[in-house]
Amino acid sequence: MNDLRNVLERCGIAASELSGGTLGVRSAVDGTELARLREAPMTSMPEVVARAAAAFRRWREVPAPARGELVRLWGEELRKAKADIGHVVSIEVGKIAQEGLGEVQEGIDICEFALGLSRQLHGRTIVSERPGHRIMEQYHPLGPVAVITAFNFPSAVFAWNAAIALVCGDPVVFKPSEKAPLSGLATFKALERAIARFGDRAPEGLAQIVIGRKEHAQALVDSSDIALVSATGSTRMGREVGPRVAARFGRRILELGGNNAMIVTPAADLDMALRAILFSAVGTAGQRCTSLRRLIVHRTVKDALVAKLLPAYESLRIGHPLEQGTLVGPLIDEAACDTLRHAVAEVEQQGGRILTGGERVLADRFPNAFYVRPAIADMPAQTELVRRETFGPLLYVLGYDDLDQAIAMHNDVPQGLSSCIFSNDLREVERFLSAAGSDCGMANVNIGPSGAEIGGAFGGEKETGGDRESGSDAWKQYMRRSTNTINFSTELPLAQGIEFG
Amino acid sequence: MNDLRNVLERCGIAASELSGGTLGVRSAVDGTELARLREAPMTSMPEVVARAAAAFRRWREVPAPARGELVRLWGEELRKAKADIGHVVSIEVGKIAQEGLGEVQEGIDICEFALGLSRQLHGRTIVSERPGHRIMEQYHPLGPVAVITAFNFPSAVFAWNAAIALVCGDPVVFKPSEKAPLSGLATFKALERAIARFGDRAPEGLAQIVIGRKEHAQALVDSSDIALVSATGSTRMGREVGPRVAARFGRRILELGGNNAMIVTPAADLDMALRAILFSAVGTAGQRCTSLRRLIVHRTVKDALVAKLLPAYESLRIGHPLEQGTLVGPLIDEAACDTLRHAVAEVEQQGGRILTGGERVLADRFPNAFYVRPAIADMPAQTELVRRETFGPLLYVLGYDDLDQAIAMHNDVPQGLSSCIFSNDLREVERFLSAAGSDCGMANVNIGPSGAEIGGAFGGEKETGGDRESGSDAWKQYMRRSTNTINFSTELPLAQGIEFG
Amino acid sequence: MNDLRNVLERCGIAASELSGGTLGVRSAVDGTELARLREAPMTSMPEVVARAAAAFRRWREVPAPARGELVRLWGEELRKAKADIGHVVSIEVGKIAQEGLGEVQEGIDICEFALGLSRQLHGRTIVSERPGHRIMEQYHPLGPVAVITAFNFPSAVFAWNAAIALVCGDPVVFKPSEKAPLSGLATFKALERAIARFGDRAPEGLAQIVIGRKEHAQALVDSSDIALVSATGSTRMGREVGPRVAARFGRRILELGGNNAMIVTPAADLDMALRAILFSAVGTAGQRCTSLRRLIVHRTVKDALVAKLLPAYESLRIGHPLEQGTLVGPLIDEAACDTLRHAVAEVEQQGGRILTGGERVLADRFPNAFYVRPAIADMPAQTELVRRETFGPLLYVLGYDDLDQAIAMHNDVPQGLSSCIFSNDLREVERFLSAAGSDCGMANVNIGPSGAEIGGAFGGEKETGGDRESGSDAWKQYMRRSTNTINFSTELPLAQGIEFG
Amino acid sequence: MNDLRNVLERCGIAASELSGGTLGVRSAVDGTELARLREAPMTSMPEVVARAAAAFRRWREVPAPARGELVRLWGEELRKAKADIGHVVSIEVGKIAQEGLGEVQEGIDICEFALGLSRQLHGRTIVSERPGHRIMEQYHPLGPVAVITAFNFPSAVFAWNAAIALVCGDPVVFKPSEKAPLSGLATFKALERAIARFGDRAPEGLAQIVIGRKEHAQALVDSSDIALVSATGSTRMGREVGPRVAARFGRRILELGGNNAMIVTPAADLDMALRAILFSAVGTAGQRCTSLRRLIVHRTVKDALVAKLLPAYESLRIGHPLEQGTLVGPLIDEAACDTLRHAVAEVEQQGGRILTGGERVLADRFPNAFYVRPAIADMPAQTELVRRETFGPLLYVLGYDDLDQAIAMHNDVPQGLSSCIFSNDLREVERFLSAAGSDCGMANVNIGPSGAEIGGAFGGEKETGGDRESGSDAWKQYMRRSTNTINFSTELPLAQGIEFG
Repeated sequence: MNDLRNVLERCGIAASELSGGTLGVRSAVDGTELARLREAPMTSMPEVVARAAAAFRRWREVPAPARGELVRLWGEELRKAKADIGHVVSIEVGKIAQEGLGEVQEGIDICEFALGLSRQLHGRTIVSERPGHRIMEQYHPLGPVAVITAFNFPSAVFAWNAAIALVCGDPVVFKPSEKAPLSGLATFKALERAIARFGDRAPEGLAQIVIGRKEHAQALVDSSDIALVSATGSTRMGREVGPRVAARFGRRILELGGNNAMIVTPAADLDMALRAILFSAVGTAGQRCTSLRRLIVHRTVKDALVAKLLPAYESLRIGHPLEQGTLVGPLIDEAACDTLRHAVAEVEQQGGRILTGGERVLADRFPNAFYVRPAIADMPAQTELVRRETFGPLLYVLGYDDLDQAIAMHNDVPQGLSSCIFSNDLREVERFLSAAGSDCGMANVNIGPSGAEIGGAFGGEKETGGDRESGSDAWKQYMRRSTNTINFSTELPLAQGIEFG
Repeated sequence: MNDLRNVLERCGIAASELSGGTLGVRSAVDGTELARLREAPMTSMPEVVARAAAAFRRWREVPAPARGELVRLWGEELRKAKADIGHVVSIEVGKIAQEGLGEVQEGIDICEFALGLSRQLHGRTIVSERPGHRIMEQYHPLGPVAVITAFNFPSAVFAWNAAIALVCGDPVVFKPSEKAPLSGLATFKALERAIARFGDRAPEGLAQIVIGRKEHAQALVDSSDIALVSATGSTRMGREVGPRVAARFGRRILELGGNNAMIVTPAADLDMALRAILFSAVGTAGQRCTSLRRLIVHRTVKDALVAKLLPAYESLRIGHPLEQGTLVGPLIDEAACDTLRHAVAEVEQQGGRILTGGERVLADRFPNAFYVRPAIADMPAQTELVRRETFGPLLYVLGYDDLDQAIAMHNDVPQGLSSCIFSNDLREVERFLSAAGSDCGMANVNIGPSGAEIGGAFGGEKETGGDRESGSDAWKQYMRRSTNTINFSTELPLAQGIEFG
Repeated sequence: MNDLRNVLERCGIAASELSGGTLGVRSAVDGTELARLREAPMTSMPEVVARAAAAFRRWREVPAPARGELVRLWGEELRKAKADIGHVVSIEVGKIAQEGLGEVQEGIDICEFALGLSRQLHGRTIVSERPGHRIMEQYHPLGPVAVITAFNFPSAVFAWNAAIALVCGDPVVFKPSEKAPLSGLATFKALERAIARFGDRAPEGLAQIVIGRKEHAQALVDSSDIALVSATGSTRMGREVGPRVAARFGRRILELGGNNAMIVTPAADLDMALRAILFSAVGTAGQRCTSLRRLIVHRTVKDALVAKLLPAYESLRIGHPLEQGTLVGPLIDEAACDTLRHAVAEVEQQGGRILTGGERVLADRFPNAFYVRPAIADMPAQTELVRRETFGPLLYVLGYDDLDQAIAMHNDVPQGLSSCIFSNDLREVERFLSAAGSDCGMANVNIGPSGAEIGGAFGGEKETGGDRESGSDAWKQYMRRSTNTINFSTELPLAQGIEFG
Repeated sequence: MNDLRNVLERCGIAASELSGGTLGVRSAVDGTELARLREAPMTSMPEVVARAAAAFRRWREVPAPARGELVRLWGEELRKAKADIGHVVSIEVGKIAQEGLGEVQEGIDICEFALGLSRQLHGRTIVSERPGHRIMEQYHPLGPVAVITAFNFPSAVFAWNAAIALVCGDPVVFKPSEKAPLSGLATFKALERAIARFGDRAPEGLAQIVIGRKEHAQALVDSSDIALVSATGSTRMGREVGPRVAARFGRRILELGGNNAMIVTPAADLDMALRAILFSAVGTAGQRCTSLRRLIVHRTVKDALVAKLLPAYESLRIGHPLEQGTLVGPLIDEAACDTLRHAVAEVEQQGGRILTGGERVLADRFPNAFYVRPAIADMPAQTELVRRETFGPLLYVLGYDDLDQAIAMHNDVPQGLSSCIFSNDLREVERFLSAAGSDCGMANVNIGPSGAEIGGAFGGEKETGGDRESGSDAWKQYMRRSTNTINFSTELPLAQGIEFG
């Protein structure tokens, strides 16, 4: 604990901030209470939003490359604090060291990507059908962005959103998960240091954090001054947020549940598939939105693959996430454990068979934390259970005979986040990537469904929300488009050749 | 009437289709009943949607350039039927001849634009951070698109949506406005002829029309097999549709109300402004979503401009839309007339003054149709009335002293569709187009707010819905994006440099 | 002959144009003289260029979508004349009927593609680092474009260039190959008809044809008023044209020689490979710039593939290109035949072996025309002969053991136009497409090197010239880019934060 | 001198490198010899190129985002060395302190821009007309890039090119101007430090510097292993380089002479124009390729503007560039001074009148350096002298009556680099930016022709060379495009619907 206090202090979080509040923060590692943070009074929420709105009016007039300079500084601060923030992530949510560091690296990467964007943010010039006219599209800052994150990427998702939003000219209001506010706070403090270095051009209220719970998030969701709500979490949450934002004509980015699958064909490199399955199914204890949950294997290779998987699963080192060699840390909390255990119990009810794992472990050493052995379930069909997202290390194995059948099974779930195929057969691979292939937002080949690079657009279709974050042109969601037709002639022709009067 | 029957027959609408139904269609010109169309039974709606879904599975595999060929044929059919469809539009909704023809021309234009797109639909290739990997984004067909239109663009809005949707690989289900189904039907029949010429590659159910009412639209809005709902209409409608589509994780394009303004500065060419005001405020009897509703004039030129406007307004020829010289046709129906008359009455209550117009005219000649004299109201301030969209030829005039104040007033309405400035002063113009300028989706210079070309993206911000149709990259809303990372190496490196296991 | 006269007349070429001149045109089919065309006097060349320059000043102010309308009309005219122009192509240069029609289809396709472009021609808006500034790039018309074509695509290459040039705002001066002026003329006449329909907005001199020889081409190459020289032909020609255009700071598009190869790996579908080889090696009698010339086959499948190829080659129907069933027509002329025969003779000198073909055939029936039996040569190594382009149906077969070695051999020629791999192995395919793979402008998978679609950019690297035609953003070469920085503030900040004075 | 030695040492240039060679380097400030650098033996040039070629084969396989990391480190090194390199630039070529620093800032900016690019380098995915096919364009590394720079941007131009080239996967060979090798060397050393930090992934030979003269440059120009020659300098140089590179089918980026003008209309803010003229005409002592050389002023404001200019010119502080308050430093050398003096003498011969300046000054204090008083010449017409680029602070003033006449005069010079208009009249401004306006690569509004931001593409038309550096999509010139069509079906359809066999 003292160690963590020192780390937090280096992250800019004073000891005084850690106590006296009503939001208890527990370590997923051992259940220790790490802090009692002070929640933002609900009565302060209108001021928070008003500050963001006021900041917007100034920030939008700061040139984008100057805004890029702020994000560059943030990247520098994250680089300096990488080890510390990674440590906080590990202690708070239980990620192994490499993954904690990986999260901060994503923040660094996105800052650099956003820095590059800060001299682009390209709209288009367009030719006009009328003489002496021209058309252009400009992308302008949109307004305050609320970033509502989940526990499982308590640092990176804020960075993804905030780096892009800031470069696009939008102030940010950050509502971290109540299960992982310390990681968020540490990431936010790095931004505050960058803002301090950046100086006067950054208006007051440019970046704010709201420590709180669901009702705080709702206040942001419903505020007409929040131009964009970027919310990561469950489909259930999205089903509530989407309509509320739509009802007030706001914009939203929803990153919701996934039910990510891998198709393994007879043409797959099974050893590579094995390694990919391990990382994507048990990494982060199966608590990534992109975690592998369904393994759809051609019947001719299914037994061979399972035969490789079982010993690999059984030799996985489960334990304290910062201990050397640990690959599987704890689940976030008791509820997560219960949900997993319940799903494991359902497997047999739905005709399946648990091949390995599923039981709680290390209860002696960590009575108040929840470690489970990653599970594999052999399922005879894609039952209701399989079609549901269970947020933990439970992998369903399904057999198939024909690729189009496998793709149909693959797509026959409500979620649409990430997917992959393992095959070295070009036709199989391209079919999977084609219009008739995977219906997910991400479809990979010979890598698992998780672990996207920041250069592509991240997000999914169907109940995953349909929106995108991170690279490519995801930035456009953080701006408003203005189509401009300029007449510099002395005539007033109408479009479509209409004559009037 | 016989004349219309002939026209409709040339449009492919048999006389037998025009009677025996429950949906009475009246001409806005004189109130005559033009047809009694048969409504689709509500019980048939699931089949409609199922047919579209089945068609999708085949159409998505037809190569996009071949899909472009279908749209090229549609363009040819529209070109042949231009005069006839324009005529139907004029008779049904009361547009003057030039505007009826202009609508069909928009359809032709969008078909040609979509034809060009059919060899583009460009995604991106992206470099990967991992050796032996590459990333690409592909855009794939999305699924069935429902196109729900309003009476005021009964032909063009369907064409805008359907041409793009079809090229993108999406079947269409068209629900025309119950106030203007004949224009929609005539446009749809041209598509059917194109499909017939196109031949076998077009699956059954590729394009369907649903004659009906609000409940038919709702069935489409709520159907999980309708991937995209493109709905044009009132903000009230959008406030209902948006959340319903969001609740089922569908996609929507909403094109809702506007409250479009023109800022006239001292540096304006007042004669050009005058002409632009006339077309955009009284064209289509003020019933375009982009019609000019607010005139924000610098006080130093306000009197001069009004002095030009009044005689111009008073000399406007109001009458049968197909009569030579007519510039102002009827409102769509009695309700529209009542709404306008009510707004006119409110003007004085809110401190304003009607300078001209606002009264019903031609009631003798057309007792069952509703012609009004376009009105100008001088308003002391932007009252609640002014901030509301009144769908008819009522123009509010407001004065201003300072450009930033004018822009603030301009933006201080809930709608955000179209806008313009008249000025030859570069600084004024660019300020208006800048991040701190007009907050509308369209911001023009020295042309009115209405009459967009199809090459730019069309649509608006705030309560206008936030979505885009027509040109630029609006097509992306009709497709789904698939981010693909392909590993063709024999290694399995993780992103962000993570080491696992 | 009478038949051809009728066809030409339908193409708009009067009988009077066909005689009395100094440029004899012979049919490749039978050596008959088809016409004696009048050459443009060299003294008229300055006027030709001056007319184009004058036309440019008017055409550049015609809005691009209106320019698109001209190209749309050209597409219509080509569609109407498809059979006739295809016939002329077949008779003049000896292409089989399907290929003659295919050329015209390419013209139609490019007109439709260019029509779509005519509302795009997108530049970029770019954010500025200075407050109150914005940046944009516009693409503006460039100036007159000379299109100098070769005999082997006497219709399509002109259409590719002219459709794009016209939409981009550039007049065209067309110098067809002296070996195939009739096909060019027929294509040009269709453009003239379109211009006539288009009417007054098309300035005089917008499209001109120059019947003549090398010195006519040189006059265009050297004229400072020809903004862009688009020349298709041999590397030798390009080696002359490139420096001459560069010396006067003109622009050029060079489409020069290719030495296109196919790599066939053990993972290939050999039957598909066989069919692809046939079309791409013997189609157009091996006289496409993209014709397959080198077959690099893994030693484990080489014998099997050759065993399939030989009977297929031997059963190829050679003959009059318009006779049903003919797959191989004549070479263009005696010189072409001599070159091929010489190469065949060299094969053995360089250690190779002719497996089939290489001899002249049908000399009895067509004593003045030059038909050869397509040849396959087994080569022990990539000798000097193999590294040279021989423009006829001579295919070298080479063996390889390792893919990287095959790629190295593939790239070890001076030309860089088109290439392909046949394999269903993902790793092989992606390696071939990667930065370390084929160094050609076009690299295909499981299709031959010839027969590109118009949607992609067409052209090659190294001695092929380095430039691009047709789709993607090849249009940018036909325009000039203007980077605009607009200051609408009242300050004058300098870039890079420089303070001055 | 000692001071400079210290600075150079901090820049990584050891004292031992500064003596013993054959290339004498003189300070433009006072003519002192700063160093005698060792020239690369001409016999070593093939090795230099071979090393670059070998490096290319490794560097192209390093993922672009990793290449971006190298450039990020270079940016860090430049940031650290900014003051020192700026100092070297000032001492070596005589730029004032602000401009020396500005150059390094451009280097920093471009590194950050290139860092952003390193996750983009976007090609396009394209839809295919054939079922089971897809098309994509990839951009791949091109090969070694030679960067040949001029004395006037001895640091920034190398950085512009090298940062982009390195990210694009291309090794660089840098040949700095023989008049300014120290500035180049200092910039290069920063890159070497970055490479050292970057570690093993950077192959030997990735970045090389060649100290030498014209013949060294020529060796690079003529080497077939140099894929791209990026050369900055005079039109005379370009007229030689262009054809030589074209003759070997290489690629080139030429950034040659400019003859940049400002049009000042009656609607201009004359005080802003005055300030802009000062910076752009006398900054860098008129030795920027974008320096203002021609002032085309409406006759109604010409006298007033000149009346403001004369006292401003006369009060310009000329002197040691590092002295506080200096705005005008020395010319680069005696030859430059002679050229300027000669042009001044020609003014009267061509009917003009020197209004101020043109004489050498400070010859007492700096007998071996060449300071001149910036000159203004009133010219009756655009004579041959005016149409020629004189590389120094000589500004020609010309009158005009009509904007189109002014634009015609503006364009009637052989060069086409940069241009601007001062006006607040929208029509004038847009006319100037239109297809019928300035024919330069850069056309600005209310800022001078010099001082571009790095986000836009930099370069000019006509005798300026036609190529582009820096921002926008200029990076594409440093890569090769590969158009890939992938058939993943089991059929082999041909494009254009051709049937074969």
